[in-house]
Amino acid sequence: MEIALEEAQAAYRENEVPVGAAVVYQNRIIAKDHNRMEQRQDPTAHAEMLVLKRAAEVLRSWRLQETSLYVTIEPCPMCAGAMHLARIEKLIFGARDGKKGAAGSLYNIPSDERLNHRILIFDGVMGKECRTIIENFFLEKRNQ
Amino acid sequence: MEIALEEAQAAYRENEVPVGAAVVYQNRIIAKDHNRMEQRQDPTAHAEMLVLKRAAEVLRSWRLQETSLYVTIEPCPMCAGAMHLARIEKLIFGARDGKKGAAGSLYNIPSDERLNHRILIFDGVMGKECRTIIENFFLEKRNQ
Repeated sequence: MEIALEEAQAAYRENEVPVGAAVVYQNRIIAKDHNRMEQRQDPTAHAEMLVLKRAAEVLRSWRLQETSLYVTIEPCPMCAGAMHLARIEKLIFGARDGKKGAAGSLYNIPSDERLNHRILIFDGVMGKECRTIIENFFLEKRNQ
Repeated sequence: MEIALEEAQAAYRENEVPVGAAVVYQNRIIAKDHNRMEQRQDPTAHAEMLVLKRAAEVLRSWRLQETSLYVTIEPCPMCAGAMHLARIEKLIFGARDGKKGAAGSLYNIPSDERLNHRILIFDGVMGKECRTIIENFFLEKRNQ
């Protein structure tokens, strides 16, 4: 999660909503990145999507079994849906997102028994730090 | 929808789950593509994601306001979530997906009042043709 937080800080410096993510496979980080929606003007360029795509390149498969995805904020429906499609094993996130969170807040896509794959969820990991960086970002935006 | 169906047929020929999509802006098709998950080994390479990304390139903005997205099958949570993020105006789809559909079946992300943008949904457009191609695909797979 420290690596994901470093990525969130990089996003902050680049004037992107500060969310960072990393994928771990066999105790090794195989992908890390941060939100790049503004710089790429790409609605799909959330941190989680970029690391899933990169991890699939590294493992040469869209099936990311036995991987863990770390992300600073609870994933939105797009990202939670992508994690489901990629069959990741564990999702570890920092702070909840009451506005669009899809791993327990508005929806719980990773645990949905109707879907054909379930993901273990661990939340609140370094939650305070993950929440603070995003709160500071929006506070600064409002003050501008 | 005919263009989206042609894309689905292209996917079928490439041994991909046959789903096709297109984005229309000001009565013009600005993006069309089909599922490429297997050929790219990319869990995010659904037809809808590829056309959203391409449309954002064409319009040079992640905000795809006033666009309509046509897709042969009801979108999954990832794709419905991406449409929400991209602020598309209308979603037109052919056949429902009872297993992972997120525009009326398992979830209804485009119409969720808790989210900050709503998408108009028109379903059942050329529904029979859209359903037939995917049913034939899986039937052929099972018979192999």
